Amino acid sequence: MRFARYGAAGEERPAMLDAEGRLRDLSGVVPDLSGEVLGQLPKVNPEALPLVEGTPRLGVPVADIGKLVCIGLNFSDHAAEAGMQPPSEPIVFMKATSAICGPNDTVSLPRGSEKSDWEVELGVVIGRRAKYVSEAEALSYVAGYTIVNDVSERAFQTERGGQWTKGKSCDTFGPIGPWLVTPDALGDVQDLDMSLDLNGTRMQTGNTRSMIFGVAEVISYLSQMMTLHPGDVIATGTPPGVGMGFKPPKYLKPGDVMELEIAGLGRQRQEVVADS
Amino acid sequence: MRFARYGAAGEERPAMLDAEGRLRDLSGVVPDLSGEVLGQLPKVNPEALPLVEGTPRLGVPVADIGKLVCIGLNFSDHAAEAGMQPPSEPIVFMKATSAICGPNDTVSLPRGSEKSDWEVELGVVIGRRAKYVSEAEALSYVAGYTIVNDVSERAFQTERGGQWTKGKSCDTFGPIGPWLVTPDALGDVQDLDMSLDLNGTRMQTGNTRSMIFGVAEVISYLSQMMTLHPGDVIATGTPPGVGMGFKPPKYLKPGDVMELEIAGLGRQRQEVVADS
Repeated sequence: MRFARYGAAGEERPAMLDAEGRLRDLSGVVPDLSGEVLGQLPKVNPEALPLVEGTPRLGVPVADIGKLVCIGLNFSDHAAEAGMQPPSEPIVFMKATSAICGPNDTVSLPRGSEKSDWEVELGVVIGRRAKYVSEAEALSYVAGYTIVNDVSERAFQTERGGQWTKGKSCDTFGPIGPWLVTPDALGDVQDLDMSLDLNGTRMQTGNTRSMIFGVAEVISYLSQMMTLHPGDVIATGTPPGVGMGFKPPKYLKPGDVMELEIAGLGRQRQEVVADS
Repeated sequence: MRFARYGAAGEERPAMLDAEGRLRDLSGVVPDLSGEVLGQLPKVNPEALPLVEGTPRLGVPVADIGKLVCIGLNFSDHAAEAGMQPPSEPIVFMKATSAICGPNDTVSLPRGSEKSDWEVELGVVIGRRAKYVSEAEALSYVAGYTIVNDVSERAFQTERGGQWTKGKSCDTFGPIGPWLVTPDALGDVQDLDMSLDLNGTRMQTGNTRSMIFGVAEVISYLSQMMTLHPGDVIATGTPPGVGMGFKPPKYLKPGDVMELEIAGLGRQRQEVVADS
């Protein structure tokens, strides 16, 4: 099953996609796609739901995200392009939830930004409370998967004080969506092609099979330190091809268009503007 | 004015303190102390509100905290004890909001923890949306102040992959409270005595005048990178006397009791247990 949320920012309604990819309104079945609902997503026939007219904006496919936990340098080839050793255990950082926006919303460069960069990532949406879970049982805590663009201001991230938070948490630096796809609808989560195009030119190419720490290991690892709650999202790291890896580096500028795709999870498209 | 929230975890009700420090129920005036309410806290006479019977648990004095942003090494004498240079601009990291608990709740050491440590900090609660605000106007965005214990597992924080998130975000590692004190009731926020006792012995002694980056500068700085929303909390750094600064280091063990105080903001008290 594929779920989505549509409508103006802050007024989104839950939806499902039917077999033809059309939005079907789900608000008569569940109030929203958040919290406990994620642990028991409705098993309904989308063809029986009201068709959504027009082509509304898509919102984040999960509401009330409590925390957005990110794994750094989780693709060995990306670690190499960043000039860093592959980590011996997952690198964990947080992105402010205030950075989250819809999958096709505008990405705004903060004032003073000269090194903003892109990162296509597999997003894992937690469906049930997870604490001290084993790797073997970890995937049973997943509500579904989505795409995250872990937009990153490299100067803020690495040249201004050691912790990465500053470069990761700018407003609009966390597009999520378009869909929440249930595990049974996706196939092997560790064999998904990933890509990111900038202005129509392929920048990132990868496959989730190249993760150093797979989804199950990441969930188990995080759950040893903190409880993962329904609606938490984990961004699992990016493959090669980010802007800072080019010689000379390439960074985002107003007017750029990013297009992201992960097999089975749909596409994102963001235009870049500068904060006024 | 001093605000608080009381009742079982997840079922807290808003309250005010009267002149004698007794809780007065505020739930007939506002639904909760969160969001837009923080920008226009009710100006009522607490003596006219219903007296709260008994001695209920105190919860976090702010509901629906969106992000908990922390400033690292913000006291020059603490930086020295940590063996680090004072930073040239604020060090910023995030604590998972799932780590937040009431001011007198039990602090649980996660499995495998051998280096959990304490940090008394001034907490700043944002009352109005703040983006690109100047230092001169920054304090007008503050709803009030409180105490934060930035409990930190030092091995998770510094020995396991570079980013601090892992050691900062464990469940119960963010006691906040007891009160939300409005700026007009507090006096000069940059002249508040701070202390932390462990098992009755003074460990940390400090004053907010020793901050490298003051409250106004921190708010202005953060707002250049991310929007601060009503209900966001900023923990502004800790004075000397944390466990890792002792030779040999002292760390928390089950049965320990932490008592924190900041002048005008009340006291916290936490017992330490080990996660089962």
